[in-house]
Amino acid sequence: MHITVCLSQQKPDPWQQGLQAALPEADVRIWQPGAPAADHAVVWSPPQAFFDEQTQLKAVFNTGAGVDALLAARIAPGTRIVRLDDAGMSVQMAEYVCHAVIRHFREFDAYEADVKAGRWSYRKPRLRTDFPVGVMGLGVLGERVARALTVFDFPVHGWSRTAKAIEGVVCHSGEDRLDGFLSQCRVLVNLLPLTPQTENILNRRTLGLLRPEGYLINVARGAHLVEDDLLVLLDSGHLAGATLDVFRTEPLPAGHGFWNHPKITVTPHTSARTLREESIAQIVRKIRAVERGEPIAGEVDRQRGY
Amino acid sequence: MHITVCLSQQKPDPWQQGLQAALPEADVRIWQPGAPAADHAVVWSPPQAFFDEQTQLKAVFNTGAGVDALLAARIAPGTRIVRLDDAGMSVQMAEYVCHAVIRHFREFDAYEADVKAGRWSYRKPRLRTDFPVGVMGLGVLGERVARALTVFDFPVHGWSRTAKAIEGVVCHSGEDRLDGFLSQCRVLVNLLPLTPQTENILNRRTLGLLRPEGYLINVARGAHLVEDDLLVLLDSGHLAGATLDVFRTEPLPAGHGFWNHPKITVTPHTSARTLREESIAQIVRKIRAVERGEPIAGEVDRQRGY
Repeated sequence: MHITVCLSQQKPDPWQQGLQAALPEADVRIWQPGAPAADHAVVWSPPQAFFDEQTQLKAVFNTGAGVDALLAARIAPGTRIVRLDDAGMSVQMAEYVCHAVIRHFREFDAYEADVKAGRWSYRKPRLRTDFPVGVMGLGVLGERVARALTVFDFPVHGWSRTAKAIEGVVCHSGEDRLDGFLSQCRVLVNLLPLTPQTENILNRRTLGLLRPEGYLINVARGAHLVEDDLLVLLDSGHLAGATLDVFRTEPLPAGHGFWNHPKITVTPHTSARTLREESIAQIVRKIRAVERGEPIAGEVDRQRGY
Repeated sequence: MHITVCLSQQKPDPWQQGLQAALPEADVRIWQPGAPAADHAVVWSPPQAFFDEQTQLKAVFNTGAGVDALLAARIAPGTRIVRLDDAGMSVQMAEYVCHAVIRHFREFDAYEADVKAGRWSYRKPRLRTDFPVGVMGLGVLGERVARALTVFDFPVHGWSRTAKAIEGVVCHSGEDRLDGFLSQCRVLVNLLPLTPQTENILNRRTLGLLRPEGYLINVARGAHLVEDDLLVLLDSGHLAGATLDVFRTEPLPAGHGFWNHPKITVTPHTSARTLREESIAQIVRKIRAVERGEPIAGEVDRQRGY
C-alpha cells in the first residue's frame, strides 16, 4: 500500500513519520511531482497538479473539517473524499464559542476596560433569557457547540439543512425556516460548511433579522460573510459586535477595517486547530477500514458539498 | 407574620416590595432601629444592633451564598441562619470560571495583544491533559463549576471537607488529602466557604504545591488568599497568573498592586451576583416551609461555619 502526503500549510514531515509509524506495512511518502500512483492521500489544499497526476487514489483524506478548498479541485470521480471528523476539534470549537458568548453576555471586555482605568464598576446583570443563541450548522462541530451552550442555560436554537434533534436545543431545518430561526436569535454562531448555497449567507438581510443588539460569531469560513454588510449593521447599532476567526483573505490583510474595529474581536483562524496525533490516528483507522471494504464516517457527498 | 428587611449594600425597597407581593398575608417592612420583633429577617451584612434588637427571629435569610459576615455577628441561639442556595448564582459561577479557564488555556489574552499590534500570530496548541483543573469546595456552586469544566474535557479534580462523588470529577476529601489534591492541579479554583479553618488557605505553601506555571482563580472570599504570597509566586514564575474576583478589602483600594499587575485579571466581585427575583422566590418558599415546620435547604451549621 502506498500513501502520499501533500500539505500546503503544515510541515509534512511529522505527518509522514506519524503515518509511517502507525502503518508499518505501507510505504508513506511526501508527494513530489512525478511520484508513482498512490492508494491513499493525506492532503491540505494540494495543487491541481497533484490530482492531475494522482488519478488512481481510492481515497483522499483532508486534514481539516472544511473541504471547500478540496471540492474546488478536479478530482478523479472514483476517489472518495474524506474530511476529518472531530479529532479534538469539536471541543476546541465549544471552548472558543462558549468563551466568546460568555465574554459578550457578561460584558467582560467592559469590565476589563474599567479595571485598566482603575474603576471598580457596577453593571446590572443581564438576563440570559434575553440572549438566545443560534447555531447555524449542526454537524459534529455545531452539535457539540450547541450542547455546550445549554450547560450555561442560554436558550439555544439550531438551524441545519436536514432535520436534527438535540436535547435542550430548539432545532429548525430547511431554507424556509431560516428567517424564523434568525429572528429568534440575538447571538448567531456560524458553523456551516462553505458551499455555493451558503456563500455570503451572512449578509445585510439575514443579519438584519437578528434581534436588536445582535452579535455574530463566525468560526466557519470567511466567504460566508459579506464583510461590508457587517460593518453597516455595526455602524447602525443593529449589531452590538462580532467575534471573527475566519476571513475572506487569510492572514487578514494589513489595513483591513476589522483589525482595530472597536466592536470586532479578531482571532487568527485559531478556533479549532488540527491536532496532529489525533488526526493521524483517525486517518489510519479510516485507511484500514477502506482497505477492508468497511464504511467510514466523514465521507463527502460531492453534490451536497460537504 | 412579620418580616423585616435589613440590607447593607443593596437597595431594600425592591426587596420589601417583592417579598410583600409574594407574601400578601405577611407584614413586610424595612428595618429601622426600635422596630417591633419580626418572625423572619432577610438580610445582607446587618449591623450588630439589628441582631441585638431582633432576638425572636425564627430564621434569618442571607441574600448571598457566603454567610461569613453573618457568622461574625452575635445572633440569638434560637434563630436559624439560612443561606441562599443557587438562585441563579451557580450558572453565573460556571460561566465566570469556564471563561477564565478557557481564556488562560487558549491564550486569548496573548492573541488579543497580537491583534492589537496588527499581528496574525501562530501559537502551538496546548494540551488539555497538561491543564488539570482543581475545584476547592464542592457545594452547590463548586459542584456546578466542576461539572461545567468536564464539558471541555479538562481533567477535573475536586476537594471538599466531606467526601463527594461527582461524575467525571476525581474527588478528594479531608485535610490530609489537600496536598495530594493540589500537587495534581495546574489551575486552582477556590469556592470554599470562609471559616476560621479556610482563612489564608491560599498561601505560599499551598499555592507552591500546584504544578509549575499554575494559575489561580479566586471567586470565594478575599480572606482566603494571602495576597503577598501570590505576588511572590507570580514573580518567581511558579504561578503563571491569576483571575481574582474577591479581595480582602472591597472595593479594591486605589494603588493596590493587583490593579495593573500584568499577570492578574481583576473583576469587581461580579462572578455570581444575587438575582433579586430568583432570590425572593426562593426565600418565600423557605419562609412558607419554616412556617409549616418542613425542612429547608441551605440551613447553616454554626459550628461548621457554612
